[in-house]
Amino acid sequence: MTMLKAREIALALREGRTTPHDVLETCLAAIAERDANVGAFCALDPAAGRAKARGGDFGGTALAGLPFAVKDIIDTRDLPTAYGSPLFAGYRPRADAPVVGQALRAGGLLLGKTVTTEFAFLKPSQTRNPRRLTHSPGGSSSGSAAAVAAGMVPFALGTQTGGSVVRPASYCGVTGYKPTYRLLPALGMKTFSWHLDTMGLFAARVTDVAFAASALTGRDLSIEGFGTAPRIGMLATARDASASADAHAALAAAARAVEAAGARIVPITLPEELEAADAVHGTIQDFEAALALMDEFTHHRAALSEGLRAHLEAASAITPEAYDEARRIGKRGRHVLGTLFGEVDALLTFSAPGTAPEGFASTGSPMFNRLWTLMGCPTINITGLTGADGLPMGVQLVGRFGRDRAALSLAALVEGAIAV
Amino acid sequence: MTMLKAREIALALREGRTTPHDVLETCLAAIAERDANVGAFCALDPAAGRAKARGGDFGGTALAGLPFAVKDIIDTRDLPTAYGSPLFAGYRPRADAPVVGQALRAGGLLLGKTVTTEFAFLKPSQTRNPRRLTHSPGGSSSGSAAAVAAGMVPFALGTQTGGSVVRPASYCGVTGYKPTYRLLPALGMKTFSWHLDTMGLFAARVTDVAFAASALTGRDLSIEGFGTAPRIGMLATARDASASADAHAALAAAARAVEAAGARIVPITLPEELEAADAVHGTIQDFEAALALMDEFTHHRAALSEGLRAHLEAASAITPEAYDEARRIGKRGRHVLGTLFGEVDALLTFSAPGTAPEGFASTGSPMFNRLWTLMGCPTINITGLTGADGLPMGVQLVGRFGRDRAALSLAALVEGAIAV
Repeated sequence: MTMLKAREIALALREGRTTPHDVLETCLAAIAERDANVGAFCALDPAAGRAKARGGDFGGTALAGLPFAVKDIIDTRDLPTAYGSPLFAGYRPRADAPVVGQALRAGGLLLGKTVTTEFAFLKPSQTRNPRRLTHSPGGSSSGSAAAVAAGMVPFALGTQTGGSVVRPASYCGVTGYKPTYRLLPALGMKTFSWHLDTMGLFAARVTDVAFAASALTGRDLSIEGFGTAPRIGMLATARDASASADAHAALAAAARAVEAAGARIVPITLPEELEAADAVHGTIQDFEAALALMDEFTHHRAALSEGLRAHLEAASAITPEAYDEARRIGKRGRHVLGTLFGEVDALLTFSAPGTAPEGFASTGSPMFNRLWTLMGCPTINITGLTGADGLPMGVQLVGRFGRDRAALSLAALVEGAIAV
Repeated sequence: MTMLKAREIALALREGRTTPHDVLETCLAAIAERDANVGAFCALDPAAGRAKARGGDFGGTALAGLPFAVKDIIDTRDLPTAYGSPLFAGYRPRADAPVVGQALRAGGLLLGKTVTTEFAFLKPSQTRNPRRLTHSPGGSSSGSAAAVAAGMVPFALGTQTGGSVVRPASYCGVTGYKPTYRLLPALGMKTFSWHLDTMGLFAARVTDVAFAASALTGRDLSIEGFGTAPRIGMLATARDASASADAHAALAAAARAVEAAGARIVPITLPEELEAADAVHGTIQDFEAALALMDEFTHHRAALSEGLRAHLEAASAITPEAYDEARRIGKRGRHVLGTLFGEVDALLTFSAPGTAPEGFASTGSPMFNRLWTLMGCPTINITGLTGADGLPMGVQLVGRFGRDRAALSLAALVEGAIAV
């Protein structure tokens, strides 16, 4: 099961060393072989894909016909969009989400929709972890992470509100990149929390997500070198005791590797303002979810899962005062984080408390991701390490708000150091 | 033509001194009498409204059955939503926008949809100014401002991306309130620019918008008194020469009145960082519009007005670098504005360059509004003054980000002072 390398394949497409048809057939063959077991896709139209591969004019585009998949929380005009809910079964949005439009404009070929949990929240989906089918792929971007891990597609779009990009990427052993808040437009998706929902990307390696993000946004986010030794902050937080022994071992191994590669390691204890911000993520998320899903909660309550219904019931009791105070705490946290990035170029921390959970009762915990979603800064799951059970164990690099190219470049440095 | 006072009517409803049926009939009678000339409404279902007035359970709610209207850029499940474009003629969204849900939850009775310009941009609509039918009501919330001015509805929802709440409010002689960015959720509307689009409210007086905003958000935004004399900054900007002589006279009259009422007047020259921010509003708006309307521009270009088509054509040439730089300039501006609000409690400036333009070639200029939309701070059009042509001439109060109750209370102070 080899992952497809988005950048290499796109360059081969641009140079005529392969064709959109051949790349698409590789994807479709992998899907035919593995997706009955993995369950990453919820909508697929091979005939339409083949017609696009034959008839598409990809001349001069960055992606040159490269196939991609889209989490089914994001609208597509040519494929149904169900948001992981029976309420929207067969729903056909009128328009592509702008981020899908950006991928198409860059010469991407929309291959299919990937499974999301119900409204991108916590209820586990049918998707299985392609690294071990008895284990969870994580959520809520379950299908996007699994599809990339299983070599079914070179890159995929996902979203993160708590930890829905970095966590499944860690569990499935792929690179997950949550860009700075609103670098990718978050329109045309089913909103859960407007201050948190963030579009993200999955691909094989850091260079592949950087390549895809450059193509979509028209910005140069390619990996660059460093004049001086970068300073990597090794973060200590109140949640570290919840990470498994092998998660600690993996993070320590990453630190040793990156130090050996020439970076300076700086121990950092998470400031109390940021611990406070971490604690209010749920207040912001849930207050907004109660508004964003108000129509479903009011008119279609019986069609929601029991867990989501109970969660929204509790959420609707959050007072505006509690929410406003949580927003102020978040703002203070962003200010303190800005100061912290005067001392370090990036932070390194856990992607998840451990490897993928066995079974399908839970998609795992976003406890190491939610603060960074609230801060809006770029985060990347770096893959290459392994837990005691032999499953992938990612580490998470946190970059400075708006400095996505630097964050990706530092993540590539860590990735390279781990691989040595 | 008397405006309906939202707060008084709601209190009468709560106390049983009138009924939802009677209030609704008053609205429907005003619409029947005037809307053939004014053209404020684009969707109206009197039978459904009457059924709701009869059958609705408004017990214990803040609005107690008070009718309201919704700008047709905002989704409603019970009435069609066309976004001012033939592309969406007859479109029926699946869900109410959360802000509509908030109004319904507060006991509001949805009366109808009010005319918006095409996708809330500049193309004039069919609506006429109820103060003088030969004149523009302003845009893009043309119908909401006109409906309140003509006494057809006690309050209405609108949106502002440049000056689409404050400007039509000024032209039509009603109170227009643009709250702090995201105080009212901006989901379920047709996005033009996600960093700028802001939900707003129209009603007769400041106390009425404050009342409606309190009901919708569950926050106490009611008018409060001042312990010490408030400091009102009289703003001088690079655009002041574009305001008419009677606009200058109205603003000076407002300053004298508020000073006589006990406030301290502080002359303020707009800092250069804020002049710079003003200048980049269009870059942010248009770069985002090219993405937000990408689907329409790609697939339905012929159905867009010539003006919007040309605008989006030009917008799609804005580089990501120019946009990113504009965003940085905006951020710097917000920082400087925060400092400025250490010296004053509010700023007072023009709502528009003058009274409503004659004819229907243009909806007027947002030149005095766009900076504040970009800054995200609360602004209120205060009515009560008149231009040389006898039409309403509003003045604009600008409050501190997140301090909406203080901004509304200061606006009420100015309104009261003008009326003396």
